[in-house]
Amino acid sequence: MLEKIDLTKTVSDKEFNEALPRLKARLSVLQRILRDRKIPTIIVIDGWNTAGITMSTHSIIQSLDPRGFTLHATGRPTEEEKESPFMWSFWIRTPARGRIALFARSWYSRAITTEMQKSGWKKSLEGKSGPINNFERTLTDNGAVIIKFFLHIDKAEQKRRLEERERNPLTAWLVTPLTWNIHYHYEDSLPYIDQFLEKTDTPYAPWHVIGATDRNYVILKVYSILVKTLEKRTESVNDSKSKKERLREPVLPKKNPVKRISVPENTCTKEECQQTLSNLQIEMLELHYLIFKRKIPLIIMYEGWDAAGKGGNITRIARYMNPLGYDVIPIAAPDETEKDHHYLWRFVRHYPRAGHVAIYDRSWYGRVLVERVEGFCSTAEWQQAYHEINDMEADYVHSSGGGIVKFWLEISKEEQLRRFQQRANDPEKIHKITEEDWRNREKWDLYDEAIDEMLARTNTEIAPWTVIESDDKWYARVKALTTVIDCVKNLL
Amino acid sequence: MLEKIDLTKTVSDKEFNEALPRLKARLSVLQRILRDRKIPTIIVIDGWNTAGITMSTHSIIQSLDPRGFTLHATGRPTEEEKESPFMWSFWIRTPARGRIALFARSWYSRAITTEMQKSGWKKSLEGKSGPINNFERTLTDNGAVIIKFFLHIDKAEQKRRLEERERNPLTAWLVTPLTWNIHYHYEDSLPYIDQFLEKTDTPYAPWHVIGATDRNYVILKVYSILVKTLEKRTESVNDSKSKKERLREPVLPKKNPVKRISVPENTCTKEECQQTLSNLQIEMLELHYLIFKRKIPLIIMYEGWDAAGKGGNITRIARYMNPLGYDVIPIAAPDETEKDHHYLWRFVRHYPRAGHVAIYDRSWYGRVLVERVEGFCSTAEWQQAYHEINDMEADYVHSSGGGIVKFWLEISKEEQLRRFQQRANDPEKIHKITEEDWRNREKWDLYDEAIDEMLARTNTEIAPWTVIESDDKWYARVKALTTVIDCVKNLL
Repeated sequence: MLEKIDLTKTVSDKEFNEALPRLKARLSVLQRILRDRKIPTIIVIDGWNTAGITMSTHSIIQSLDPRGFTLHATGRPTEEEKESPFMWSFWIRTPARGRIALFARSWYSRAITTEMQKSGWKKSLEGKSGPINNFERTLTDNGAVIIKFFLHIDKAEQKRRLEERERNPLTAWLVTPLTWNIHYHYEDSLPYIDQFLEKTDTPYAPWHVIGATDRNYVILKVYSILVKTLEKRTESVNDSKSKKERLREPVLPKKNPVKRISVPENTCTKEECQQTLSNLQIEMLELHYLIFKRKIPLIIMYEGWDAAGKGGNITRIARYMNPLGYDVIPIAAPDETEKDHHYLWRFVRHYPRAGHVAIYDRSWYGRVLVERVEGFCSTAEWQQAYHEINDMEADYVHSSGGGIVKFWLEISKEEQLRRFQQRANDPEKIHKITEEDWRNREKWDLYDEAIDEMLARTNTEIAPWTVIESDDKWYARVKALTTVIDCVKNLL
Repeated sequence: MLEKIDLTKTVSDKEFNEALPRLKARLSVLQRILRDRKIPTIIVIDGWNTAGITMSTHSIIQSLDPRGFTLHATGRPTEEEKESPFMWSFWIRTPARGRIALFARSWYSRAITTEMQKSGWKKSLEGKSGPINNFERTLTDNGAVIIKFFLHIDKAEQKRRLEERERNPLTAWLVTPLTWNIHYHYEDSLPYIDQFLEKTDTPYAPWHVIGATDRNYVILKVYSILVKTLEKRTESVNDSKSKKERLREPVLPKKNPVKRISVPENTCTKEECQQTLSNLQIEMLELHYLIFKRKIPLIIMYEGWDAAGKGGNITRIARYMNPLGYDVIPIAAPDETEKDHHYLWRFVRHYPRAGHVAIYDRSWYGRVLVERVEGFCSTAEWQQAYHEINDMEADYVHSSGGGIVKFWLEISKEEQLRRFQQRANDPEKIHKITEEDWRNREKWDLYDEAIDEMLARTNTEIAPWTVIESDDKWYARVKALTTVIDCVKNLL
């Protein structure tokens, strides 16, 4: 992609001054339209050092209402970012609907600078393109528009600019020995970066590579592409038509069915179970300490029927861990801010740092359960979610080196009724049963169907489901703890 | 406070095993009551190293539903925390209503360890007690219950425990040369810590100092105090009675009135103003660069009548700054999560880091403007807010070394009507005028009164108001930029 770029294009000051005002005015209007239509926009400006990223960013900003965008400059990773999965710091910066997120350098720069420091970085840079494409695709499938610019200059031009920067006392501090070192490797790195761009050049998020030798040309080109892309996106008055066009036919993952039973073959008495839990306690504490020391993150995720016992199970598991090393994330209906973001955003925010454990009480599977049954999202959206979820979980495991344990707590329909009635009749527990629980129960068969499909389509090798037979809550707690222990042993 | 503590108290295993279950069950029930009543709870466990903070925390947690609390362990400050005002990292961790925030070590430990490294720390530790008391008081005044424990052991006991820790290979890594160094200074630091506790022992957030030599005794005492305090708080079925009792008679700050005019004595033509702005541009860029280099933070805050021109003013100011060094924070009605927190929480979250600028478009003054006029909070609550806001702004300036510029954009009632009509008649601008704008205008006199009182009571020396005569928007932009430039020059 980079070879073909014409680096000699220029634009005269006269032409620049004639064309720019119209483009700026248009961009300003388009921002308002995007805001009214609640379309989230991501603009990425990346490229070689000194190619003009800061200058272009500064220029674009002058046409935007500052209350409607956020600028994210990607620099060296912070402590927290180094201990989080690769895409996490960018996921948390994805914009709410109607807002613009402008990235001056992005996950592309981060990938290049991170990988460049390792040996054999051709392979590892390629390895990043998969997760990046998944990230961009799920965002665009769920309504975002992504516009990516790569500002390209040749080695001689970069040298010229670095020397100029060095001579100016106000900017000399930006040019370090490391800067020159990276410059010397320009020719070595060019083919890898080129391939990286090729692999991340997609129909839903194409690259716009711009020859950046001439300042006027770069700015005009960036504006033109922004205006053209955003006009196309907003041309139909009703965004739902273009939404239909954008959403590809959902690709459903192959089924890998999981059997659900609520009573295991071999169970234990309450006393036996409690004794087993007690015995396992020390082992769990030691293992938790080891994943903390070795900085391995762990996600434990609970789904299940209402009244299946998620809360009690989580409480017991948590007891056997050092409280400074885990967080419990209770998931309920999304609030307004969360509804304004991609549906996975609110879960990714809580990813555990290296060495920490995050226990999700309900999860992103709500998309294919309650949202499917209640119609909170379209059929195409939940059908697509299986694939998106599998990608997200795989990317998490690969980029964090951590593990993910997924529990489905199964009880029989009769047992659920028994527990509901028990709660309704007990003044100490009546608060635990609500109208919503009864309404969900009426849709048992619809949920049953949704659960079977969910388990079958997201039971992957990297993140398998474990069904916990939960009619007997003490057995359920033992099974959950032993499953977690086995998973952690495998990680260490 | 520490001198008087009896360090010889013990509790037999028999007594412990008899008393604890009842207390644990009671705490569990109380958590649920607090959740249903939407009362936010803060539990602080602080004290000497090895006094049993982790152990006590772990014990309390076993009685709590993990989905209803968050544990915050306060350790060494992160990069981000070092670059933020002292109380910021604790403000952002204050709990939503109905939730419990448990602090294993807290702002007390942070204050002690931070100040201990400086010379003359007697004075500086005292200096921290003011902001800490302001923080705790505003939280309790707005509904939170704060329970603070200091676990106390003597020097000999601490030595014994440190040696034990050192002998155990699993825990030896916790005992470093620094740990011993701090231990050697036990006697030196005792009187200062004692005084610090005295100064932060208040009726709304009293200290519970516990002699922590005996493990059984500590745990039982912590539980008893928790249960007793929370039972008292929840004894009246209706929380509003206790709310009335808790809210002190609001103390209104002395008035320091500010004159409001919408047209200045000396104005400039549009061309003159634009030329001035252009001339000031370079100076602003240089000053912005200097505060960035010297790591000085700056808050610029806008309030004003509807249609006064906040948006346009912000856009022009922002243009003269490096986009990588500022954030614009648009404030609108709070979402559910924000409503569930203290009213200042959502603003403190956006405090700028050292060297950065935060521009608030509307602000915490909403409490004494729209919330007062529309009755979204009680009279006592907005009357109290003047003091709370003055404290918050003073604490911010003192602890960050930064500045805060407060703008009130004034237009005449006639000018507002003119602008409303102009927007209503212009298809390009009609989106800018809403039903709400007209409704607010009907309450002009009520707002007028609220604005006068707001300016008078919060026009402090440390954070004065600047009225911007905004009938002429170009004059307004010049005045805003020159005010910011003057403020920054004073900071440098």
